[in-house]
Amino acid sequence: MTKYDPDNIFAKILRGDLPSERVYEDDETVAFMDIMPRADGHLLVIPRSKARNMLDATLAQLVACMATVQKLSHAVIAAFEAEGVTIQQFNETAGGQEVFHLHFHILPRHPGVNLRPPGTIEDHAVLVANAARIRLALAG
Amino acid sequence: MTKYDPDNIFAKILRGDLPSERVYEDDETVAFMDIMPRADGHLLVIPRSKARNMLDATLAQLVACMATVQKLSHAVIAAFEAEGVTIQQFNETAGGQEVFHLHFHILPRHPGVNLRPPGTIEDHAVLVANAARIRLALAG
Repeated sequence: MTKYDPDNIFAKILRGDLPSERVYEDDETVAFMDIMPRADGHLLVIPRSKARNMLDATLAQLVACMATVQKLSHAVIAAFEAEGVTIQQFNETAGGQEVFHLHFHILPRHPGVNLRPPGTIEDHAVLVANAARIRLALAG
Repeated sequence: MTKYDPDNIFAKILRGDLPSERVYEDDETVAFMDIMPRADGHLLVIPRSKARNMLDATLAQLVACMATVQKLSHAVIAAFEAEGVTIQQFNETAGGQEVFHLHFHILPRHPGVNLRPPGTIEDHAVLVANAARIRLALAG
């Protein structure tokens, strides 16, 4: 297993060295908007502590992430009137991982709407607006 | 939230009313071969107890599943000399769910090898052979 790289972009987001649209945080996890959303409201959930991915994570990190994934899944369903969510979690390059800090994707889904292809950066204003909807759903 | 249907096919597998190629089980979870694998060694991890999906699962169910997902991910990496794993977890029809008992997909991955399209039932002998490789990796 390759060592954790403390300069990955999610580590920088956690340190505040890079901006993100955070929608939720607790003592163990942070949730923020994916800047290349494959669906409106596409979120990432990460642990505050270091883990390269699920393979080297502690069970405590996985538990904390899953609790936040569940909470935020209900929030995006409410925020976007979604009818389902898809969870994806990628491990190592062959597994689809691009940023080497453990993360879970939450993808709000609507009937008949495919996920968009990956790789297109969303307008910042859209991310801000969608983050606001999720925060409102969490507050309600 | 729609109620849990005790006649879904994973409930039948848990009761032994339908066959499956089980590779692992403990007090809380069972792992068996997906009969329509999108990669060699494609596994499903489910809780023994009832949950429609992640949205109505208890945290205890999610914890038990993630512990088994992690254990089995290492096993499939060893068994198939995989270089990564992709985890997928679908919730409600819009989210990609087809069987309404909580389940996590473990997909062993190799560089440059795309997931196969869904929906093709694998030869039983192949599933048996791949299950044997995973059991051997778990025993090692």
